[in-house]
Amino acid sequence: MTLYEQFAEEIAELIRTGTLQPGEKIPSVRVASRTHKISAATVFQAYYLLERRGLIEARARSGYLVRANANGMLSEPEHSSLAHRFKETSATEVDVSELVFSVLDSIKDPTTIPLGSAFPSPALFPLQRLSRSMTKSLREMPAHAVVTDMTSGNANLRRQIILRAMATGNKYPADELIITSGALEALNLCLQTVTNPGDMVAIESPAFYASLQVLERLKLKAVEIPVHPRDGIDLDILADSLARLPIKACWIMSSFQNPLGASMSNEKKEKLCELIAQYQLPTIEDDVYTELYFGLHQPKPLKSFDQNNLVMYCSSFSKSLAPGYRVGWVAGGKFAEKINRLQLMTTISPSIPAQAAIADYLQHGGYDRHLRKLRETLETQQQKMLLAIERYFPTDIRVTQPKGGYFLWIELPQRVDSLQLFKLALAQGISIAPGPIFSASQNFKHCIRLNYGNLWDTKIEEAFKVLGKLIDSFKNT
Amino acid sequence: MTLYEQFAEEIAELIRTGTLQPGEKIPSVRVASRTHKISAATVFQAYYLLERRGLIEARARSGYLVRANANGMLSEPEHSSLAHRFKETSATEVDVSELVFSVLDSIKDPTTIPLGSAFPSPALFPLQRLSRSMTKSLREMPAHAVVTDMTSGNANLRRQIILRAMATGNKYPADELIITSGALEALNLCLQTVTNPGDMVAIESPAFYASLQVLERLKLKAVEIPVHPRDGIDLDILADSLARLPIKACWIMSSFQNPLGASMSNEKKEKLCELIAQYQLPTIEDDVYTELYFGLHQPKPLKSFDQNNLVMYCSSFSKSLAPGYRVGWVAGGKFAEKINRLQLMTTISPSIPAQAAIADYLQHGGYDRHLRKLRETLETQQQKMLLAIERYFPTDIRVTQPKGGYFLWIELPQRVDSLQLFKLALAQGISIAPGPIFSASQNFKHCIRLNYGNLWDTKIEEAFKVLGKLIDSFKNT
Repeated sequence: MTLYEQFAEEIAELIRTGTLQPGEKIPSVRVASRTHKISAATVFQAYYLLERRGLIEARARSGYLVRANANGMLSEPEHSSLAHRFKETSATEVDVSELVFSVLDSIKDPTTIPLGSAFPSPALFPLQRLSRSMTKSLREMPAHAVVTDMTSGNANLRRQIILRAMATGNKYPADELIITSGALEALNLCLQTVTNPGDMVAIESPAFYASLQVLERLKLKAVEIPVHPRDGIDLDILADSLARLPIKACWIMSSFQNPLGASMSNEKKEKLCELIAQYQLPTIEDDVYTELYFGLHQPKPLKSFDQNNLVMYCSSFSKSLAPGYRVGWVAGGKFAEKINRLQLMTTISPSIPAQAAIADYLQHGGYDRHLRKLRETLETQQQKMLLAIERYFPTDIRVTQPKGGYFLWIELPQRVDSLQLFKLALAQGISIAPGPIFSASQNFKHCIRLNYGNLWDTKIEEAFKVLGKLIDSFKNT
Repeated sequence: MTLYEQFAEEIAELIRTGTLQPGEKIPSVRVASRTHKISAATVFQAYYLLERRGLIEARARSGYLVRANANGMLSEPEHSSLAHRFKETSATEVDVSELVFSVLDSIKDPTTIPLGSAFPSPALFPLQRLSRSMTKSLREMPAHAVVTDMTSGNANLRRQIILRAMATGNKYPADELIITSGALEALNLCLQTVTNPGDMVAIESPAFYASLQVLERLKLKAVEIPVHPRDGIDLDILADSLARLPIKACWIMSSFQNPLGASMSNEKKEKLCELIAQYQLPTIEDDVYTELYFGLHQPKPLKSFDQNNLVMYCSSFSKSLAPGYRVGWVAGGKFAEKINRLQLMTTISPSIPAQAAIADYLQHGGYDRHLRKLRETLETQQQKMLLAIERYFPTDIRVTQPKGGYFLWIELPQRVDSLQLFKLALAQGISIAPGPIFSASQNFKHCIRLNYGNLWDTKIEEAFKVLGKLIDSFKNT
């Protein structure tokens, strides 16, 4: 062994024995060089080796941290087409709302450990700073704005959204942009604009349950396209489905897909855009987690590859800044005018003060600084949750390790019924999101989604012990 | 002539000659008694006589004012069944959106005199005080509320709404109440909850154009029921229609109906509730103008007479306090749970800060004081507009004189095409709302709706001169 390999092995041993815990910093290059009396270059080589082995990872401005799953105990879930004996897509009537509401209703209790929640903890958001922006912007707002801004939204907010989009290559003319009451309104308006009751819509499987509810509400049929847990929707199966079935629209999350956390590569996004162009397929891109990336760069949205104005790009501030303010948007491509009119017929406009406050915050409040901190926090939380899973869950599970967002998707052993597990956990004051609510055909019966958007504490740690035991209890049934 | 009759005649002469202008105060009883050296009782008798003759009216805390139309020059519009050679109702496919949007789009220019606007002037609202409530309530709001309040709304706001409703006999259990993004969302959710595409819905004629757009969006057919310009919907025709046609829902504005300003009597509301009960007809009550009454008492809503939980009561703060905040509500009767779920699938929740601000304002801001002032202002504005109509419009017109709200409905001579008039007026910088946008069958071609919710000034006065001339120009075509 060379000197750097020896040093790397020393550190690896500390990790394996738990002396260095996942999420902890390892000594900086300078400190390690001094205390071990080896050159900085040797330390660098050692750390580079450990990084390639997946034991540690570099973090901007924090040096190197020990990774969860450093020993590779946790496998990635299977491609959903394999997990469910997939043969060929078909159209499914959607009837999930009752199930979804029964789950959501039962987890309302604020004392429950909210691992099943769809929102990150409000403690992670700069709500006080945002309140100051609210006060300031209301003071500066001319009275007539409370009426006139209803037609097209707060002008400053529109500017800020368009500017931020340009940073990811997402350029579109201002008149494509419609401010909405959260992304969910945007998604509803888009889907209603491009479909009629009875139409088929291609949708990821698993998919965010609210998207299934929208299909159900609009009496649309779901064509469920399997999703790779890391790379996103299966383009071959999508292409095959488009060739066989009269699909009228597609709904996709290209980055940090909910619930899998999968992100498509740029090449894949390009290919998807070719497919969309070939079928002139109206495509709704739900990109609400894009700001919560853990890497160095924000992912480019599908829309930035679309040259046919077919992609309706939907996002919001609910997951990254201001849950409850209910401000989202859509860049509606060629469908923008119709989407806008549909909004004027239903909710008219999102709340004017909320728009003004967010606009001021984006301009003066330090959004990028907040986001850097939020991303770091979420990544650390993910590591902590993975570690707890490693510790307390049986070894024959599979779990995603997404590069952004705040959800883990866990494939439990086939013997575990996640709806049953949901009830057992809830009885112990813990909520989880059971797999079947993410599928029109109520697949994923042995899967669960867990939210790591809450600050880690002993209560959450304890919840994982309990969940582990509950999962074990399925062994003998 | 008795002394009091003589004195009344003196005042009447001052009104007829224009020395006392409509909207002006006449001398108080005390002052008149002193200056004319007659007893207070005599002055009272004289004023009572003038009031009965319709020349003056008593106003709370302001004494007596000269009424517009004091000389009875202005007639009331005809019952809409008479005006349009009505025979029997039938179902009409709704296709008004293009027309409505072409009108609304063209009146966006803020320099236009907004007689066609649907909102009162923001200058009439206590926006600064409301901003203070926003600042305070955001400071006091616990962080988790931005997530937890999304499921059922701000608890304080819910309390305030329920308490205010009780004052008009509108009692319902708290779980019927859903806070919405303005009344329009409430109305949309209600109608979607109780209908399927293709269903028939009974609706007033003329009706608020947005309600027609909602019918169009949901692919519903309109059964247009004529409305008396003072007493509201024609119950005989409604009863006949319910007997003949498979009507699935009814949409009604029982007080200060838009655009006519008509208000149903309590007896009529009771009868309507009997009819609703007989057919178990889901009924949507749109009551957004209820706080803008000019009399001594707020009208009782239809819902307060409903013993079958069939009335879905919708209202908002957009017309009386906070346009652009987008906070409304519905007390959904037996349909409440379904309405709530539909909202959770589309917009989830109205903006939390807007809800908190309004709740604080209702509790501490002096809403009732504001409303008293607002009502007085609107009534005075109505008088001024009626006077301008008397002065500048031809004599063969008819105009409503509603007891609340901020709209006048004007029946012009049949030779006037209101869509043509709309274009001519717009070219001169004046917007009006042309009759056909208020009807699925695009009736009311010679009618217009004018908004008196803007503070009267020489520009508006001038606009009436211009409108008068434009109306005259139709004589020779």
